[in-house]
Amino acid sequence: MINVLDKGYIRLVEKMGSDWSPLRSARVSTGGDEDKNTDNDMDLKDRKLIQYLLDNGHTSPFESIVLTFEVKAPIFVIRQWHRHRTWSYNELSGRYSELPCEYYVPDEDKIGKQGKLNKQSRDTSSEVDASEQIRYFIEACNSADGDYRYLLDNEWPREIARAVLPVNWYTRMYATVNLHNLFGFLRLRNHSHAQYEIREYAKAIEEIVKAHFPVIYYAWKKSQQSKYLKGVRQFHEKFGLGWESSPRWIPDMQDFRIKFMQEELDEYKEAVANKDMVKAFDALLDLVYVTVGTAHLHGFPFDEGFEAVQEANMLKQKAKSADESKRGSAFDVVKPEGWVAPEEKLNQLLKEASTCL
Amino acid sequence: MINVLDKGYIRLVEKMGSDWSPLRSARVSTGGDEDKNTDNDMDLKDRKLIQYLLDNGHTSPFESIVLTFEVKAPIFVIRQWHRHRTWSYNELSGRYSELPCEYYVPDEDKIGKQGKLNKQSRDTSSEVDASEQIRYFIEACNSADGDYRYLLDNEWPREIARAVLPVNWYTRMYATVNLHNLFGFLRLRNHSHAQYEIREYAKAIEEIVKAHFPVIYYAWKKSQQSKYLKGVRQFHEKFGLGWESSPRWIPDMQDFRIKFMQEELDEYKEAVANKDMVKAFDALLDLVYVTVGTAHLHGFPFDEGFEAVQEANMLKQKAKSADESKRGSAFDVVKPEGWVAPEEKLNQLLKEASTCL
Amino acid sequence: MINVLDKGYIRLVEKMGSDWSPLRSARVSTGGDEDKNTDNDMDLKDRKLIQYLLDNGHTSPFESIVLTFEVKAPIFVIRQWHRHRTWSYNELSGRYSELPCEYYVPDEDKIGKQGKLNKQSRDTSSEVDASEQIRYFIEACNSADGDYRYLLDNEWPREIARAVLPVNWYTRMYATVNLHNLFGFLRLRNHSHAQYEIREYAKAIEEIVKAHFPVIYYAWKKSQQSKYLKGVRQFHEKFGLGWESSPRWIPDMQDFRIKFMQEELDEYKEAVANKDMVKAFDALLDLVYVTVGTAHLHGFPFDEGFEAVQEANMLKQKAKSADESKRGSAFDVVKPEGWVAPEEKLNQLLKEASTCL
Amino acid sequence: MINVLDKGYIRLVEKMGSDWSPLRSARVSTGGDEDKNTDNDMDLKDRKLIQYLLDNGHTSPFESIVLTFEVKAPIFVIRQWHRHRTWSYNELSGRYSELPCEYYVPDEDKIGKQGKLNKQSRDTSSEVDASEQIRYFIEACNSADGDYRYLLDNEWPREIARAVLPVNWYTRMYATVNLHNLFGFLRLRNHSHAQYEIREYAKAIEEIVKAHFPVIYYAWKKSQQSKYLKGVRQFHEKFGLGWESSPRWIPDMQDFRIKFMQEELDEYKEAVANKDMVKAFDALLDLVYVTVGTAHLHGFPFDEGFEAVQEANMLKQKAKSADESKRGSAFDVVKPEGWVAPEEKLNQLLKEASTCL
Repeated sequence: MINVLDKGYIRLVEKMGSDWSPLRSARVSTGGDEDKNTDNDMDLKDRKLIQYLLDNGHTSPFESIVLTFEVKAPIFVIRQWHRHRTWSYNELSGRYSELPCEYYVPDEDKIGKQGKLNKQSRDTSSEVDASEQIRYFIEACNSADGDYRYLLDNEWPREIARAVLPVNWYTRMYATVNLHNLFGFLRLRNHSHAQYEIREYAKAIEEIVKAHFPVIYYAWKKSQQSKYLKGVRQFHEKFGLGWESSPRWIPDMQDFRIKFMQEELDEYKEAVANKDMVKAFDALLDLVYVTVGTAHLHGFPFDEGFEAVQEANMLKQKAKSADESKRGSAFDVVKPEGWVAPEEKLNQLLKEASTCL
Repeated sequence: MINVLDKGYIRLVEKMGSDWSPLRSARVSTGGDEDKNTDNDMDLKDRKLIQYLLDNGHTSPFESIVLTFEVKAPIFVIRQWHRHRTWSYNELSGRYSELPCEYYVPDEDKIGKQGKLNKQSRDTSSEVDASEQIRYFIEACNSADGDYRYLLDNEWPREIARAVLPVNWYTRMYATVNLHNLFGFLRLRNHSHAQYEIREYAKAIEEIVKAHFPVIYYAWKKSQQSKYLKGVRQFHEKFGLGWESSPRWIPDMQDFRIKFMQEELDEYKEAVANKDMVKAFDALLDLVYVTVGTAHLHGFPFDEGFEAVQEANMLKQKAKSADESKRGSAFDVVKPEGWVAPEEKLNQLLKEASTCL
Repeated sequence: MINVLDKGYIRLVEKMGSDWSPLRSARVSTGGDEDKNTDNDMDLKDRKLIQYLLDNGHTSPFESIVLTFEVKAPIFVIRQWHRHRTWSYNELSGRYSELPCEYYVPDEDKIGKQGKLNKQSRDTSSEVDASEQIRYFIEACNSADGDYRYLLDNEWPREIARAVLPVNWYTRMYATVNLHNLFGFLRLRNHSHAQYEIREYAKAIEEIVKAHFPVIYYAWKKSQQSKYLKGVRQFHEKFGLGWESSPRWIPDMQDFRIKFMQEELDEYKEAVANKDMVKAFDALLDLVYVTVGTAHLHGFPFDEGFEAVQEANMLKQKAKSADESKRGSAFDVVKPEGWVAPEEKLNQLLKEASTCL
Repeated sequence: MINVLDKGYIRLVEKMGSDWSPLRSARVSTGGDEDKNTDNDMDLKDRKLIQYLLDNGHTSPFESIVLTFEVKAPIFVIRQWHRHRTWSYNELSGRYSELPCEYYVPDEDKIGKQGKLNKQSRDTSSEVDASEQIRYFIEACNSADGDYRYLLDNEWPREIARAVLPVNWYTRMYATVNLHNLFGFLRLRNHSHAQYEIREYAKAIEEIVKAHFPVIYYAWKKSQQSKYLKGVRQFHEKFGLGWESSPRWIPDMQDFRIKFMQEELDEYKEAVANKDMVKAFDALLDLVYVTVGTAHLHGFPFDEGFEAVQEANMLKQKAKSADESKRGSAFDVVKPEGWVAPEEKLNQLLKEASTCL
């Protein structure tokens, strides 16, 4: 059982299948028989097939793994959860039962302020003193609980008395889903756009999946890579060029990689000079390919870094004149006052990447 | 737009298909072409095919009819609605928008008391003076609204400030579903076990379906009949024996029907005397068949009547001795003190049946 | 593994859950905890809850039981199977693999003739000498296999060479489904309207479900009863009036039940004489109730019997005049020449009921 | 109606919704009202919202658009189609109808040979003389048809006589799906891994979608871009930096872009020299960003180009020694004999990009 939020939890009640299940399902396609000793470790061929299935969007082999969770969470979290229509739910009913007085109170440092850029988000970057409002919040919930008991005492039916209970009331459910659809849930709910509270549950689920289906889990994470990174990774894997998962310097390859990138950039320059559009196109593709490959050898978390750069770039402004651009071009985009470079975020990503695994 | 509850509504926004659609879908199975003039009235053959499809559980021809509704309803109603996973939903978000102060207040005569027999229901049979509690209820809601605005004023993010709003707050959604799945919704939600509030929406939907797909709607109602009633109805339809939809006497057939029922009962007696089990079985089957057929000719709403009798029967008690039974058998079940015969309910059903259509 | 048809089979590969699972799911609704020792036998309360859930159409508790099957079946069977969209499928692919020469040949006594009454069915009641055509059939399949190999030998891609293989070719799949949706499959595919070949697979699945989930299985069978039979059964169960599952005589109750039925019929006669419509309605309802109850005490398979009677009734003809009716009524429906009474079928049902369980 | 393959077709029978529908659905989230005159053209704000919804994976607004198609296709195509479980299907039944003699014959230039690299594919790059086998193929189909008629003539039931018909027999269905799920179908079936025959249907559907929902269609195409390209596109759109959809030279920005890329590469060199890992990471990210942006300004189809490069790269071989590498590194991957550079494919992509739209 993993505790989540102030009074909630999630636990895996039952599961069907293992890391071996998608192999059995996939190999029926090719007429193969699956008589492996599934107690042993998987060999490289098995792992590669799992990665191949996930990289290429094969979904049905992951539908034969099924998990049932027990979840205790606030109603507003469950409301978001129930929008996922591929799960089966059995929930505590306020029609059958008198509900206990259990409600969610946010941690002070998780409240923040209404996000400015993204209409749906909250921004917890600056410290806020919300202790006064939290006292008020708790009082409001206790008052609602009193109202509920008062109506019940006056013989109101449970199903209508509960109408006064707020959406931060805790409820409880059993929820069953297959692994393919669970991955869909995680993609949406363990995402920066998801509300903090449901994201905490999604993170807990990811821990559970990682513990029970480690091979599939890490293959799934890799399969989430952007197209270019995934292509470069497959290339490096195939040719044994290495794939670092924690950041490092690459002394033995450093000169070669720099030479390689410069070469592609020069090919672009030459193609422009020669008005050879195919070569120009090819050179830009290769420059991206080699650059991503270099980052790859460094073990840099490139997709996460790209997101940080993208977020920062979207906050830039267009140059008002060529003078404003340090490159002397009115086509440039420049950094407005107060703009924060993504470097701090990149630094943090490098640190996280060094410690994980 | 149909107003539902104190401040809610439902309206049909868009639809695809008509009473003709399932014919087109069904006739592809038989290789037939559907070049009917669909502006004309349906002929009997078309209507019979629709009835046949519904009576025999053919679902896909009704999946090509699709409806989009706009719904305004309290959160607790929407919570029940969202358990239907075959719909598509787009709902007002408390993360994106500040929610207006609009909440559901039950009508005094719809509150009742907690049901005794059925753990989930409410019992509105006796009059209750709830005016005092309703004042209290409204105050509680206004107080919650004040709490919500207070938190917003203190710059709490919308997504967490809304945590204090009760589940009777109104919300709004667009919801799309095909007709087959809508029938599934209606079966569960326009049912005596459903909560009053969602049932009001289900009733409104039934009106909309009836208006736009009248042939399918009435065929669907008939297809809901119990197995025996449906069998007898199909038999009467096939042989033109009549099928009354409002109660009446049957002077020209009365003697014949009585003779017929007595005959089957006598056959049972004879079979028992002769120890002929097949004939005994057959006679009981025929007695039921002829009795249901007689009720049918009378235009009695037999399934609804059966439910009333069943409910009353389940409240009876077992005879403690043969003396207690008016039939002198300790195997009898007798009526306890205070037991209400189903006749009043049957009377009401006959009245409703006389006015409907 | 259960062998099905001439070369097919079905086996349960994996399952999640047991007879206990729906109890856990259902009791979360009422806030109850489920800490039963699930190794012990179920007590009556547990069994009653399972029956209640199924009788009242609660579906989600049965969605947390999941089964994976391996199936080998002809393509035309798999085609019908794949119309069930709630399963997950992984099938042998003719794009990835060269398909072996394995095809379905029907048993001579299962071929029959095209059904006359029901456009989709076959009629195997009369003996047919099909040995000549079966030889022809086998030759046709071998010829198709030869064509397939010829195209492959000429380097045609597998995915297009397989275009010449007939739909009776065997294929193989893993298929995962939850128990609720499996019941939906069984209702349609272990049904007299289903094609013989897929019905054989459905029957095998029913054996597997019965072996692994016996309590749920028998409760589900009961829940399939017609409305009236179900009502009477619930009444008899509640009052301990007995519920026989194999046919028998009822000497100690015989006089009472006959008196009881006659009493209700007489009440109808009286109500007609008195023009009391409510009493007439009530009497007919009671007559059906008591008659079904009597059949129930006899242990007669009433629903199956009703189907036999219905089928026979639909083959009758309307009386051309009052003379033709043995009851002297032109409203009567009479038996045409060559009409077969349902008694033989009823006899067979009684025999089956005596041996089952 | 669009003709597909030799005798098949697809046509849009009915649709619900328009380019405006997702706006209505999306704006309910923000509490907005949608009272636009939907006969007018969309303004930029509307188009941007549609792009935003698709770029960010919002699916439900596209579930309120529903389409019904009529499809005539070979059984093996329909078999692949039916694996998509979110559609509703009504198909011609070989149980109800005698099937006409209509079968698919592949065009000679679409047959090719079994693919070597990808186990499931066919390779149509080299010319093949298959006329002899096609004659054989046709004979085999006519023979199967003869077998079918022979069995029918001998009174075999339709449902079992059809067992000898091959999977290239044409069948016909009505199929209903919402636009979100249709996009899922197109992603898988208008894809290089899909079988040629079903891909032809997917292409026809794409034409229909483009004609009826042009704004959504083009926004969906853009939303399919790889993460980096999408990020750069959003950046360019926001700052009005241009986004060319057909290839061109960029004389007014050429020097600036070259300087820009060289600058980022130099920053990487410097960071390596200074052992500043954050700066190295940042520089590689920026180099990719600027390079993709440059390609973007050129109007190069970068994702398609990347796929061509990736395919070619996966066919390379690892350098056996530093001597073999033109960069003098044993870490290099080199081009084997007979290896075809992606330039021809890139050239073709540029041509296609010039003519489209």
